[in-house]
Amino acid sequence: MPWPIQRFTAETGQQVQAGVVIEEPLEIRIGGQPVGVLMRTPGLEKELAAGFCLGEGLIAAMKDVALIRHCGQAAPGGNGDELAGEESRNQVEVSLMPGVIPLRQSDSPVLIRSGCGRVDATTLAEGLKPVEAGVMVRLEVLQHLIGQITPRQAAYRAAGGIHAAAILTADGQLVVVTEDIGRHNAVDKATGYCLLRGIPLGDKLLVSTGRASYDMVSKGVRLGVPILASLSSPTSLAVELANVLSCTLVGYLRGKTLNVYAHGWRIAT
Amino acid sequence: MPWPIQRFTAETGQQVQAGVVIEEPLEIRIGGQPVGVLMRTPGLEKELAAGFCLGEGLIAAMKDVALIRHCGQAAPGGNGDELAGEESRNQVEVSLMPGVIPLRQSDSPVLIRSGCGRVDATTLAEGLKPVEAGVMVRLEVLQHLIGQITPRQAAYRAAGGIHAAAILTADGQLVVVTEDIGRHNAVDKATGYCLLRGIPLGDKLLVSTGRASYDMVSKGVRLGVPILASLSSPTSLAVELANVLSCTLVGYLRGKTLNVYAHGWRIAT
Repeated sequence: MPWPIQRFTAETGQQVQAGVVIEEPLEIRIGGQPVGVLMRTPGLEKELAAGFCLGEGLIAAMKDVALIRHCGQAAPGGNGDELAGEESRNQVEVSLMPGVIPLRQSDSPVLIRSGCGRVDATTLAEGLKPVEAGVMVRLEVLQHLIGQITPRQAAYRAAGGIHAAAILTADGQLVVVTEDIGRHNAVDKATGYCLLRGIPLGDKLLVSTGRASYDMVSKGVRLGVPILASLSSPTSLAVELANVLSCTLVGYLRGKTLNVYAHGWRIAT
Repeated sequence: MPWPIQRFTAETGQQVQAGVVIEEPLEIRIGGQPVGVLMRTPGLEKELAAGFCLGEGLIAAMKDVALIRHCGQAAPGGNGDELAGEESRNQVEVSLMPGVIPLRQSDSPVLIRSGCGRVDATTLAEGLKPVEAGVMVRLEVLQHLIGQITPRQAAYRAAGGIHAAAILTADGQLVVVTEDIGRHNAVDKATGYCLLRGIPLGDKLLVSTGRASYDMVSKGVRLGVPILASLSSPTSLAVELANVLSCTLVGYLRGKTLNVYAHGWRIAT
């Protein structure tokens, strides 16, 4: 989806339109029972459902599958089989052959959440308090972040293939750098480091080498972090959620160059 | 962890030791109840537990937490509180203050699996059949993979920040390229594409732009895919699991250069 961003380089800051990858939940049902909700990019939903159910071992073989179809909320007066616009692409039903039952529950990362047909940032923001105004950060601080973090990525230098997260003060003092194969784990280690030591998060920057997905934003906001920066890309839901929750969201932080996706007013140029 | 690999470049193939990032499960308990198992890199477990529980909203504030400690299986004759060697680092107990109960279940990607104290590749391989010998692939086919996949990554070109997966025949014919914000989703779309069309997977290559974690290997093996290749890094458990399950695992596929972590005999030089 196109989204207006501020793009800063060493010399300039300008308003441009950037493409943002769509993130949407897909609920997969087997025989009417939800077996998982995947946050995914729309497209190839039936293929995704087939690959997920067989790859995760929920169904033993394609011969056990009678039908895979999109399903939506029933149209008014309908018999329940009709597609109803946008809902349809976010729910897929896998019908099994008579007598076949699912092998087991998935133990893959899946989240089950009701109402996935209509997920938007406003729904996801429910129960989350917008971040308070608080802190400002100078553009130069953001532009020098990577140079501070990289020397501390010891595991990355040793083997590669590992994410990092960092907490910094608004004037660019490093509090902690953590590493983990999972981008979420690295973030949890960094915020947990502060939580365990009584270091407040409401005036800090949280930096991640990984994708800024919606759940990264909700996690930061829940802990009161006002500024999130990702060395990678944000997803559509992350951008929308940050926007709704008054969280400053920076993506594609690449040294001097960075994109601001939400609440750029906290960045002083 | 150090691991012997074959590293191929345009000119040479040689046996070297490569660093592989450790992947291990951490079970987090609140008041004795498991609330999630995170596949993570060891280190900062108490911080990870704190960040996870508060960031996911399972616990409202640190003041509700009485204690976070490692816990292991009870030592023989002990009272259950002792650490018992290696188990300890993979289980963390969060004790709440009197009268406090967890706010809600996590809806983040977590997997609950028993016995996480002793997870190794042999345990994870239970119930999975080793891949059959089958297909061989020429080194040049692997070295030309990226050139075939990149032109089909339409969403990546448009916005960046999106994973891709691909299925190819052993002689390098492209079957399908899929894209998704999630590396697992991209793989599920690609395998599902074949499953829905009756295209066999037992003689194919599965390529992912994302990390090869243990669950990526188990997913491929479950579908009978003999050769997995990642443009990124494999984890320790992925390497061990591929080794046990007779799956050829290629990592850091970067054009002419690639690392072979397991069962390189399927690659003809």
